[in-house]
Amino acid sequence: MTRLTLRVDLGPGKAIGPGKIRLLEAIRDSGSISRGGRSLGMSYRRAWTLIDSLNRTFRRKVVTARPGGERGGGARLTPLGMALIASYRTMERRAQKAATRELATLQRALRR
Amino acid sequence: MTRLTLRVDLGPGKAIGPGKIRLLEAIRDSGSISRGGRSLGMSYRRAWTLIDSLNRTFRRKVVTARPGGERGGGARLTPLGMALIASYRTMERRAQKAATRELATLQRALRR
Repeated sequence: MTRLTLRVDLGPGKAIGPGKIRLLEAIRDSGSISRGGRSLGMSYRRAWTLIDSLNRTFRRKVVTARPGGERGGGARLTPLGMALIASYRTMERRAQKAATRELATLQRALRR
Repeated sequence: MTRLTLRVDLGPGKAIGPGKIRLLEAIRDSGSISRGGRSLGMSYRRAWTLIDSLNRTFRRKVVTARPGGERGGGARLTPLGMALIASYRTMERRAQKAATRELATLQRALRR
C-alpha cells in the first residue's frame, strides 16, 4: 500500500516525524516513558532523550513525568502533547488525501 | 521556517524521500551520476546504489547511464525519472498547503 509519511521541520534540530509521534502515543497509552519506549523496542535512555528534546522544543512540556517510586514513575501527556499528536495525524490524513492522484500514478508505475 | 518533508512508502524497501529526489534533480542538472552525487556530498557508490534501487523499483528505468569513456560516462533522466520528480514536488506542495493551519499552530507553540 502506498503511504505518505511526514516529517515536520520546525527549525534546526527540531524535527518531528513518525517515530516521536508513535512514542507520544505509546506513552499516552501506557502511562510511562519506559513502557511506551519498550513497546516500540526503544531503550529507556533513547525514549527519555526524544521526550526531553520535545519538551525543550515547545514553550510548554509535552510529557510530564512523576519521579519513580516502588513501581517506577509514571508519565502523562500534557494538553500540548495531546494536541501535537492530533495535529500530526491531521496533517498526515490531509497530505495523504491531497496526494491521492500522484500516489496512484506512482503505484501503477511500480514493478510487480 | 516550518516545513513538511514527505516520504513515500511504495512497499517493503521501496521508499522515496527528499534524498533520492534531490539526487535525481542533481543528475538531471549535471548530466552524470557521479557529478550529481558529488554535488550533494555523496560518494559515487552511494549515488549509484540509490539510482540502481530506484531503477529496480519501477517498471522502467528512471535514469539511463552511458558507459564511461575518456570523459566518464553521462547519465540522463528518463521520462519516468522526470515524472517522479514532478510528482514528488507536487505532493510536497499540496501537503504543505493542506497542513498550513496545523503548521502555523505548531510554530506558535515553539519555544523562542
